[in-house]
Amino acid sequence: MSAPGAPIDFYFEFSSPYGYVASRLADDLEQRIGRALRWRPILLGPIFKVTGQAPLTNVPLKGDYSKRDFARSARMHGVPYRHPDNFPIGTVAACRAFYWLEDRDACAARRLAKALYSAYFADNRDIGAAPHMLQVASEAGLDAAALAAAIEQPAVKERVKSEVDSAIAAGVFGSPFFIVDGEPFWGVDRIPMLEAWVRSGGW
Amino acid sequence: MSAPGAPIDFYFEFSSPYGYVASRLADDLEQRIGRALRWRPILLGPIFKVTGQAPLTNVPLKGDYSKRDFARSARMHGVPYRHPDNFPIGTVAACRAFYWLEDRDACAARRLAKALYSAYFADNRDIGAAPHMLQVASEAGLDAAALAAAIEQPAVKERVKSEVDSAIAAGVFGSPFFIVDGEPFWGVDRIPMLEAWVRSGGW
Repeated sequence: MSAPGAPIDFYFEFSSPYGYVASRLADDLEQRIGRALRWRPILLGPIFKVTGQAPLTNVPLKGDYSKRDFARSARMHGVPYRHPDNFPIGTVAACRAFYWLEDRDACAARRLAKALYSAYFADNRDIGAAPHMLQVASEAGLDAAALAAAIEQPAVKERVKSEVDSAIAAGVFGSPFFIVDGEPFWGVDRIPMLEAWVRSGGW
Repeated sequence: MSAPGAPIDFYFEFSSPYGYVASRLADDLEQRIGRALRWRPILLGPIFKVTGQAPLTNVPLKGDYSKRDFARSARMHGVPYRHPDNFPIGTVAACRAFYWLEDRDACAARRLAKALYSAYFADNRDIGAAPHMLQVASEAGLDAAALAAAIEQPAVKERVKSEVDSAIAAGVFGSPFFIVDGEPFWGVDRIPMLEAWVRSGGW
């Protein structure tokens, strides 16, 4: 195991099935490699404007494959998965809630992220609209009234924009996306390579 | 190990780095799972017209990542890799030569494919133009004069078109792409999943 190092950036979009699967593997990954993950939700909408890409399920041929692979990948990892009826969705309210909470209680922010992902990808609940997102937060024991006020604050809105801009500047173009010591890894299927990279110091 | 079954379709584009890496792992994969692979070169150009996608290296952000990941993936698998100066290239002559040979001697066709892949991705030789492709074939001990005549035959040209159409009809949108008993697997990084799928009979 490598010596304790800087946190590994773990970028994800709340509307990303592979991001969800990665989120379910993240805590075990931290334990195995002895490196903390820094959870950083992003918005693929503005990122796809930069790359000219479209949501996976909208791409001919690739769309059908992807829907099959979302469920198959989840089953392989023992993660509950039910493709949401409304997909993809906008997740800016979730991102704002996450970062506001992150600055106050990083554990609570991670709990919120997990609750939102489960609601969307296991329970088919639309977490896009703020009231639905806040309902899930409330069920997770978080202060929904405080979050409701927070996500309307200009500084919080700006924070999400700045996080997305930073991700783009770091080369992030998909979800999940990991950066460890400057080395980028895209996709839940890159976790084994990431792990081998960290353990060996790269190759 | 599963009982002998129908061959696994192994689709690849001669200009695809991940297809090249997969080709270097293909023989060992056959041995491990006890199932034959049927090598089927395709052309991503017409396929990308259907899906609206672009060559990886042309996509902003994703392009830089991909070039890094081609080399990193090759190193991880112990496969020699040198990103070609001229990339991507058109590979229709190579496909025609492959299928003409395939109908006569499947082993020779596989040998040609390996020689072309090594020339392009290990030795930085442009295999796009027919004379260069034929030169590599000749060095691999194949009858370059017969191949030169074959790739001009209308039936051989039609054969490649029909192979690409069949691939599209089967849902193939990238390289490498495997289909085993109707189940599709895209990417060299899906080989472990494919292997687990074959061994377990699916999940």
